Amino acid sequence: MSENVLDAIQQATEQAGDLALGLWCLIGVALVFFMQAGFAMVETGFTRAKNAGNIIMKNLMDFAIGAVVFWLFGSGLILGDSVGGFFGTPINPFKLSDDIFPAFMFNMVFCATAATIVSGAMAERTKFLSYCIYSLLISMVVYPVSAHWIWGDGGWLAKLGFVDFAGSTAVHMLGGVAALVGAIVLGPRIGKYSKDKNGKTVSKAIPGHSLTLGALGVFILWFAWYGFNGAAATSVNNAAKIFTTTTIAAATSTVGVMIITWIKYKKPDVSMTLNGSLAGLVAVTAGCNNVSATGAFFIGLIAAFIVVFGIEFIDQKCHIDDPVGAIGVHFMCGAAGTVLVGLFDEKQGIISGHILNPELTASQSFGFLGVQILGVLTVALWGAAMSAVIFLTLKKTVGLRASKEEELLGLDIMEHNLVSSYADFEPSHTLVSSSSGNKSADSNVNINQAIEVTDSTPKEISESNAKLTKITIITRPDKFETLKTALDAIGITGMTLTNVQGCGMQRGDAKYYRGAKIDMHLLPKIKLEVVVSKVPVEQVVDAAKKALYTGNYGDGKIFIYSVEDAVKVRTGEKGYAALQDE
Amino acid sequence: MSENVLDAIQQATEQAGDLALGLWCLIGVALVFFMQAGFAMVETGFTRAKNAGNIIMKNLMDFAIGAVVFWLFGSGLILGDSVGGFFGTPINPFKLSDDIFPAFMFNMVFCATAATIVSGAMAERTKFLSYCIYSLLISMVVYPVSAHWIWGDGGWLAKLGFVDFAGSTAVHMLGGVAALVGAIVLGPRIGKYSKDKNGKTVSKAIPGHSLTLGALGVFILWFAWYGFNGAAATSVNNAAKIFTTTTIAAATSTVGVMIITWIKYKKPDVSMTLNGSLAGLVAVTAGCNNVSATGAFFIGLIAAFIVVFGIEFIDQKCHIDDPVGAIGVHFMCGAAGTVLVGLFDEKQGIISGHILNPELTASQSFGFLGVQILGVLTVALWGAAMSAVIFLTLKKTVGLRASKEEELLGLDIMEHNLVSSYADFEPSHTLVSSSSGNKSADSNVNINQAIEVTDSTPKEISESNAKLTKITIITRPDKFETLKTALDAIGITGMTLTNVQGCGMQRGDAKYYRGAKIDMHLLPKIKLEVVVSKVPVEQVVDAAKKALYTGNYGDGKIFIYSVEDAVKVRTGEKGYAALQDE
Amino acid sequence: MSENVLDAIQQATEQAGDLALGLWCLIGVALVFFMQAGFAMVETGFTRAKNAGNIIMKNLMDFAIGAVVFWLFGSGLILGDSVGGFFGTPINPFKLSDDIFPAFMFNMVFCATAATIVSGAMAERTKFLSYCIYSLLISMVVYPVSAHWIWGDGGWLAKLGFVDFAGSTAVHMLGGVAALVGAIVLGPRIGKYSKDKNGKTVSKAIPGHSLTLGALGVFILWFAWYGFNGAAATSVNNAAKIFTTTTIAAATSTVGVMIITWIKYKKPDVSMTLNGSLAGLVAVTAGCNNVSATGAFFIGLIAAFIVVFGIEFIDQKCHIDDPVGAIGVHFMCGAAGTVLVGLFDEKQGIISGHILNPELTASQSFGFLGVQILGVLTVALWGAAMSAVIFLTLKKTVGLRASKEEELLGLDIMEHNLVSSYADFEPSHTLVSSSSGNKSADSNVNINQAIEVTDSTPKEISESNAKLTKITIITRPDKFETLKTALDAIGITGMTLTNVQGCGMQRGDAKYYRGAKIDMHLLPKIKLEVVVSKVPVEQVVDAAKKALYTGNYGDGKIFIYSVEDAVKVRTGEKGYAALQDE
Repeated sequence: MSENVLDAIQQATEQAGDLALGLWCLIGVALVFFMQAGFAMVETGFTRAKNAGNIIMKNLMDFAIGAVVFWLFGSGLILGDSVGGFFGTPINPFKLSDDIFPAFMFNMVFCATAATIVSGAMAERTKFLSYCIYSLLISMVVYPVSAHWIWGDGGWLAKLGFVDFAGSTAVHMLGGVAALVGAIVLGPRIGKYSKDKNGKTVSKAIPGHSLTLGALGVFILWFAWYGFNGAAATSVNNAAKIFTTTTIAAATSTVGVMIITWIKYKKPDVSMTLNGSLAGLVAVTAGCNNVSATGAFFIGLIAAFIVVFGIEFIDQKCHIDDPVGAIGVHFMCGAAGTVLVGLFDEKQGIISGHILNPELTASQSFGFLGVQILGVLTVALWGAAMSAVIFLTLKKTVGLRASKEEELLGLDIMEHNLVSSYADFEPSHTLVSSSSGNKSADSNVNINQAIEVTDSTPKEISESNAKLTKITIITRPDKFETLKTALDAIGITGMTLTNVQGCGMQRGDAKYYRGAKIDMHLLPKIKLEVVVSKVPVEQVVDAAKKALYTGNYGDGKIFIYSVEDAVKVRTGEKGYAALQDE
Repeated sequence: MSENVLDAIQQATEQAGDLALGLWCLIGVALVFFMQAGFAMVETGFTRAKNAGNIIMKNLMDFAIGAVVFWLFGSGLILGDSVGGFFGTPINPFKLSDDIFPAFMFNMVFCATAATIVSGAMAERTKFLSYCIYSLLISMVVYPVSAHWIWGDGGWLAKLGFVDFAGSTAVHMLGGVAALVGAIVLGPRIGKYSKDKNGKTVSKAIPGHSLTLGALGVFILWFAWYGFNGAAATSVNNAAKIFTTTTIAAATSTVGVMIITWIKYKKPDVSMTLNGSLAGLVAVTAGCNNVSATGAFFIGLIAAFIVVFGIEFIDQKCHIDDPVGAIGVHFMCGAAGTVLVGLFDEKQGIISGHILNPELTASQSFGFLGVQILGVLTVALWGAAMSAVIFLTLKKTVGLRASKEEELLGLDIMEHNLVSSYADFEPSHTLVSSSSGNKSADSNVNINQAIEVTDSTPKEISESNAKLTKITIITRPDKFETLKTALDAIGITGMTLTNVQGCGMQRGDAKYYRGAKIDMHLLPKIKLEVVVSKVPVEQVVDAAKKALYTGNYGDGKIFIYSVEDAVKVRTGEKGYAALQDE
Repeated sequence: MSENVLDAIQQATEQAGDLALGLWCLIGVALVFFMQAGFAMVETGFTRAKNAGNIIMKNLMDFAIGAVVFWLFGSGLILGDSVGGFFGTPINPFKLSDDIFPAFMFNMVFCATAATIVSGAMAERTKFLSYCIYSLLISMVVYPVSAHWIWGDGGWLAKLGFVDFAGSTAVHMLGGVAALVGAIVLGPRIGKYSKDKNGKTVSKAIPGHSLTLGALGVFILWFAWYGFNGAAATSVNNAAKIFTTTTIAAATSTVGVMIITWIKYKKPDVSMTLNGSLAGLVAVTAGCNNVSATGAFFIGLIAAFIVVFGIEFIDQKCHIDDPVGAIGVHFMCGAAGTVLVGLFDEKQGIISGHILNPELTASQSFGFLGVQILGVLTVALWGAAMSAVIFLTLKKTVGLRASKEEELLGLDIMEHNLVSSYADFEPSHTLVSSSSGNKSADSNVNINQAIEVTDSTPKEISESNAKLTKITIITRPDKFETLKTALDAIGITGMTLTNVQGCGMQRGDAKYYRGAKIDMHLLPKIKLEVVVSKVPVEQVVDAAKKALYTGNYGDGKIFIYSVEDAVKVRTGEKGYAALQDE
């Protein structure tokens, strides 16, 4: 057989192979797009219903704005001819050549993933406009530049041999560091941190409104991650190996977090375990092509510890409010996963390399680890510096944070005229209350009215001929904590709370939904009922008035009714005695 | 190298290429199936909870009924030998040859997509049986015939050079025009349109019950659209180009709608922006293979305007009730996207063609635009005519619309014995009330009882020694608007509304869920509480009685209690004064 | 052309084809992973909100634990060198060779699917720890062994010619039989079965908390099933054929169940129809590659009957509580689908084989059917025996079932410290009550307190000068049924029920969510209001006290108020008369 026949066959085979691998890569691209759905569900599910529409909108805009500016500006910074390894030169977006489309799409969806990570950490309190501007800038400049360092043709980190196969650093750590800076600049949600009696800052849990949607998001992300990590595979065995390392790291981290939280909190924590799956996925992304199944196991195991202790550290020690755990998952595990390639790379890692590759020298392996650390540090620095500039500039100009009223009532209604993202369901204003009157560490919520009340000493009434009276207080949901504190202070411990709707108090401005007018004459209210005998009625009324008074419409009303009798079921006591708690 | 060796190599390469492209196409098929999930979520999320199970069921049946009849009848009409370019001859469904399976599956899933578009526009008021019959007919006849014109071997539009690469017209506009005709024949939902004081018809917003599920649906659709548009790609570069145009059009339209609604309604509208993503996707579908990234940008931009103003026009001007915006998205943007190929086609479009292709003559480009317009018009005519025949026949025979009671109580309970699709959550009957007593433009809901009451002039009581009385009214949720109007008329503006459950009023017929009996002795009720002093108690009782009376069980009860005192927190006023609103 | 050139071309073509098919298979692997999302949504959606987080967690752990132990132990049992056709020899998990990765990933995701089926049937009452242990064992031993029989190189069923192309028996029936054994050993949920007056066991419907998420799950599963069934295809036509048979069987079964339930229950049942889609998919899985479209139609049709009557039989006759229908779908349809290959296999099936293949002898076809039956029986026996050993051992040791308190309050709060998976929504404790006081067939719930009350004969009060009194009872939600029964017994039929929150009754132990303390001072309560005149107040109070008394904190309180008047709207009756129901 002549050589040129062999060459022709070889070439034809490669051509067919390139077709199959090229299409495979595009399936990966579609899957990476699908991660947007996963992020949207995780971020919405882990936050409160009153901001659901806003979070959805931010996630949608991340991709939409990102795609447009990536096309117009960003693509050249990654894909263009390298300027000293630091950034690429512009590509004319109006004359894209046919053969650039695959690389273009591939980089666009990865870019959008980095952008979307930030919305979770800044959820529930960021001004929509500012978020859009930030999102535009990260897709236009911040991501493309550092991605060029790592993946660009001639990027300086690429030339040093930095390994970040699918983007633990390029995508996740970059998004994560922007999330960290954003959450710091923004400050915590109202009610997230408060001082206890000893002046110690206490972090309060603010549970998400749909753990099932959050879990669905994690499943979608895990599924799509096979595309994220596998898109650049070069053969079936290679793709299957990437699937294997991805799966083992994620599964190990999931099980690991479950066990850690079981020991630490006495119960396996659902939402933290969901974060655990993502932690393993983020961590193995850098090395999915370069580590063994065993290496992936250890990377997953380490990620499990990092995500639990990292999220706790961010929340409990640093008092940085990250509603969805994005900083722990993407920043910490992204950085760690990249550095761990320095240990577990099969060819040059300090641990796996020396086990599997006898020719590896210590200087090679330690040099490699050094490059991994250098890459993480420089990208982190770049991301942090640029994010700081962007967020601080936004804060000074258009304003970064939603107003206090917007935050308390919810961004949906205030930023989007959306009465509720779940119009047919009764909201529970108070089951796990959090939006209310705690003295927030970083905001100016004033709850001193309630505290004044504590001065008055309870006046007692004698048991004989005690009259029973019911006092019904109807007021705004966000006043519940303040009211409760005030009533506690005068010795009232038993109350019944009902979510009701108040009627006849229209807001002045008309609201529109898809262009049609919304008929909104009902506002959410709470009804608090107490029955008293020992504590005088006037004292209750006074305490309530002080707690509720702001001078605005909607402060509420108090009604007083006579009660004929009361019975405590457990003891059978009646009247005055039935109302006394031990 | 001999020529036959080259031929053999060439043939082998093509064979391998066909395998890769054939499998790619089947992945596209699976993704197009997944669009059913997207449509189901969008349509459910954008409508009310009381119809959620019904909408799910209609979406499921679209595909299931469609698949069976497409197999038995429809496939031949598309794929069979062409009869004059108008329809294909039957294929024996019991003897499908091996090589027809790819084309069979490909066409089946596209057919099901066209069918499913209609359910959204007709949601919340269509009889289930009639919907199933319609769904059967569109998949059996309507879609296959016009799809044959466009995509069939020898179809008359295909022969004219009509370009509809992935089905802006064949799938979306056809489904959209059927949705338009269906929504017209059916009439609006009760409460959607009412007359204001000047006799002008006012459109009322009826917000969906889960914007997060709606958004998830949009993300799923966008993801699956890469399969929808990309399935017929012929190379990696071609597939990547299709991905690029699809992405840029969708992203541009999304950003466009956000900005338009921000300006128009003062706030960026979430649900309209979600429609905006779909609008861009629908519009670029015809030309995804034939336009440049720049062309896709303009198509997306135009789609953004069309969808916002189109949905408003349909709703506010035409008073056609389309709960999910299907007509604006699929009919309008489908038609527009197909015509726009006449402008932006890189080879023969009036704008892009003349820029990029110097040899193009004006008669060629205008001729091409003419064909595009002709295709849209003839398919629209075909779809409209067939839909009109089907829906009007159904209306005359089995009936197209659910009964008033079914619609008010919800199709879930009435059509499917499903007490609630969300059994564990408290429904909010009234937060944004819409199902109740407005005088609907197209239905016979009689609310005159309430209006009579307005005649009686409020009788005042003097302030001195004024007695305070609480009146509690317990009645059906759908009576809220009527009752509120009646109480407003006698000068009562402050009320408290609580969602409660009434007990002891079993419905006669047993209900079954998965064959097991449902224990349903609790019915949703509302409790309206007012405290009066100035307005006499008898007048309130009389007004309520008139507003609530129907003579049926469940009209409700009124209870009267003595109130000892009342306090208005804002002013500190007590007793009589506390109850007077300025 | 020389022969070795042809060979070289042939080889190159095959190599390119292997690449395309190998990547196709890995896309299938990713889709099979995505089934985890589908199962999680179906199982969560079909059960109650109070257990949503727990079910999510179990589904996540199925895969995570399963993946780790499959890697460490299970993979060798399937893929290793066969020991007599019964099981494979171990593979060193720390030294996986490159070419084993594809088979490794393929088998891992199928294994996880089998494991996850069980969680649905055992939902809402299984101890989390025990479930994790079971999940570990099925992935480590039970599934790998029988999968080796069927799919292993040298497996004894494979050698006999057993056809189970994608796992009706290997995956679904195995998972289904484990679900059956698990549900039997575990016993039904509290309140699921009760005795009626004639001592007959009555099954009660316990509707799921989100039919939309359940439906989403079914759509995800159907989508992913194209990967599940199609992953092992060998050509484009073959893959398209598998898609076709899969689609037709699923669609037919869906339509079939809709019609059957429409006839049987008078209305098309939504959740059963969703089960119907899965039934068709499970049934066609064994033969998707071997039957024609027509065969798939019949398999789907038969599956429709099996799933409806099967689920009813399991529930109504056997009184086995399977909240999601997993036994009917996976065990019954998995077994039936495998046996039906014996009828519809195009080459050797008793029906299709003899029609299409004239050379087939009766002994061949009946022999083939025999092998199919043998395979089903032996795998069922293996699965049942192993599951029985595992579940009975767990029951004896760590305990299989959650405590009564855990089950009533919900596994989320008791097993995971999760106050609610939907913290922002008001739960409906009682709309379709089921968690409460019925005498459960298999548990020791004592509701005799309520029954005692029935002895006391109602004492009547004369109409003249009748005083009206309101009695308000505030107590725990789970007491509703008992209380209602007690009040019914003394002639009180009209009540109003409100979901409220009781305040001031902190639980002793602090709860943590993601490491932050949860502020939980509000507990769900119900408020039951009755207005009486005929029935003496003391009798109501006594009945309520007896019904509610347990001697524990939280038994509740009873308040008595004077009512001035009452009006029945329908009749216009006032006072005493307004309260008397006909």
